[in-house]
Amino acid sequence: MSEQIRNGQKPAKGIAPNVEPDALYNDKRKVFLFGSPSYTNIGDQAIAYAEEKFIRNHFPYYEYIEIMDYATDEGIDFVKKIIGKEDIVCFTGGGNLGSLYLDIEEDRRKVISAFKDYKTISMPQSVYFEPTEKGQREKRKSQEAYGSNPNLTICVRESQSLEFVKETFNANVLYTPDMVLSLKIEPQDLKRDGVLFVLRADKEKVTDENFVSELMERAANIGPVDRTDTVLSEVDTIDYADRETYFMKMLHRIGSRKLVITDRLHAMIFSIITRTPCLVFGNSYGKAKHSYTDWLSGLNFIQYTDKQDPDELEPLIARLLQTEPNEIDLSEDFQVLRDYFKS
Amino acid sequence: MSEQIRNGQKPAKGIAPNVEPDALYNDKRKVFLFGSPSYTNIGDQAIAYAEEKFIRNHFPYYEYIEIMDYATDEGIDFVKKIIGKEDIVCFTGGGNLGSLYLDIEEDRRKVISAFKDYKTISMPQSVYFEPTEKGQREKRKSQEAYGSNPNLTICVRESQSLEFVKETFNANVLYTPDMVLSLKIEPQDLKRDGVLFVLRADKEKVTDENFVSELMERAANIGPVDRTDTVLSEVDTIDYADRETYFMKMLHRIGSRKLVITDRLHAMIFSIITRTPCLVFGNSYGKAKHSYTDWLSGLNFIQYTDKQDPDELEPLIARLLQTEPNEIDLSEDFQVLRDYFKS
Repeated sequence: MSEQIRNGQKPAKGIAPNVEPDALYNDKRKVFLFGSPSYTNIGDQAIAYAEEKFIRNHFPYYEYIEIMDYATDEGIDFVKKIIGKEDIVCFTGGGNLGSLYLDIEEDRRKVISAFKDYKTISMPQSVYFEPTEKGQREKRKSQEAYGSNPNLTICVRESQSLEFVKETFNANVLYTPDMVLSLKIEPQDLKRDGVLFVLRADKEKVTDENFVSELMERAANIGPVDRTDTVLSEVDTIDYADRETYFMKMLHRIGSRKLVITDRLHAMIFSIITRTPCLVFGNSYGKAKHSYTDWLSGLNFIQYTDKQDPDELEPLIARLLQTEPNEIDLSEDFQVLRDYFKS
Repeated sequence: MSEQIRNGQKPAKGIAPNVEPDALYNDKRKVFLFGSPSYTNIGDQAIAYAEEKFIRNHFPYYEYIEIMDYATDEGIDFVKKIIGKEDIVCFTGGGNLGSLYLDIEEDRRKVISAFKDYKTISMPQSVYFEPTEKGQREKRKSQEAYGSNPNLTICVRESQSLEFVKETFNANVLYTPDMVLSLKIEPQDLKRDGVLFVLRADKEKVTDENFVSELMERAANIGPVDRTDTVLSEVDTIDYADRETYFMKMLHRIGSRKLVITDRLHAMIFSIITRTPCLVFGNSYGKAKHSYTDWLSGLNFIQYTDKQDPDELEPLIARLLQTEPNEIDLSEDFQVLRDYFKS
């Protein structure tokens, strides 16, 4: 570490927004999280929130330092100057390892390549490269970038991705639920009313709009019906300081409904946290479906379905509305990740 | 709330050291913790650390605000100006409810009396009023103060205190382990050497010094022997900002030994967190003993004993040194406290 840096060089915006500048230069073992989201997908915001809690709760003797997504390049340069040989480099979890969100995938490749001499982990992800020429070209780029790092671990959050990653990448592989499921938030006791549809408007969307309209009409029998998405459009960015606030708002919104109907993995997970009955449809490549079948099928108030016939769904919905929510404990399923950070 | 306060009146030192001033004036439900320790007992510091984690992890939609012990009077005045009818007032846990630490007991009485119209809780405590005239006089003062608050809950951390509190005070009573046992810190993988004696030097001490000397001599066979206390003497105060640092230092110190021998409840608990074999003697009124028998006797690497004959202790120590530490999960035992804060 150069004396110039030690003597209080203030890092650029987006580097270490979650700690005092001093924290960059102490002698604690450091965990760096790259790719910390500034975009308005509350699912990805909740993942970053959960990653921070996970490290801070289980490893309070480490210094946990985030690098926002918009500061990846400067962040790599900066971290290279201060990183120690025992430190750990993470890239945030989510459902963006693959060819669908190339800006993020390119950042992940950069970070993994830049820190090939350091313990490096891609946090729990769903993985999907499109079965097109473009998708396969991107896969080869990722294989090359990941392959340059002999210290890489890839953690995946459902079985479909697990098989794919084992076959595709030469890396250590871990398997845990989505990070948001590691949180221990107690549900608020909120007055509940009506039905909230939380539906994608992006390239992963497969739910038919006519079917949605029909289902919304029928849901009006239950109470007021609203439609939203877990990707906010009322703001352009969510920086570290506002993460918890937006996440809590979304939990409040979901937790004050009698029923959630969604094709969003994290609307399902927010329903679990708030004990809100939830009917779940799939996305384009099965990340919600597989997360459900791998970890969550024991929950009586969450129901995954591939059916898109309102007549068939009515009895499912009726059952969900009458169910007293149960609980499952996924703590042990995160043990492999705790062991990873411990060693 | 007066406009004068809303417009940025900065609270006095010791009031809300753990939040930005804005947090005092938002519309979130608030949890106030009084009695936050500035003294150098790392057991009590760890309790306050665990209380903060407990509220922040399980109830991130609440605002958690600490009042340091040295600011109790100003803190009461200040909180009275901003408290809302749904807010919760806490007094920190420990082993100081009773006649042994009157400065703290007097603060607890003040806080409980001052907020008699609000949901009020004394966090997990061991309770002891001396069986002397002075002790009984203090008990009556506490009965009077606590009795003035019809919304008071007293949480106790071992069965001996539970029976006493039920008989003595007219309050709701909860029963949980010590708050530090709610933490989920992963033990660091440290090189271990020698034996650490962690021994009281206060009015609760009952361990005989000749016996200690004899035991220290014999322990030299295991490796280097040191003696310390969980009450630090190298500093006068530990303020909120330095709490984690001192707590982590103590965990490091205990976790780098092969064996801990102690009459301190929290040296036993720090041994549990760091998976360090530990032999435990009692204090003057049984708080370590009862915490052990109530919650911790399932741990194979922690052994309570009333014996003070080195010959009898040698086989116990030999067994502890050979044991592969097991784990127990106390999460469910804190459910009553989570339910308390939820409602």
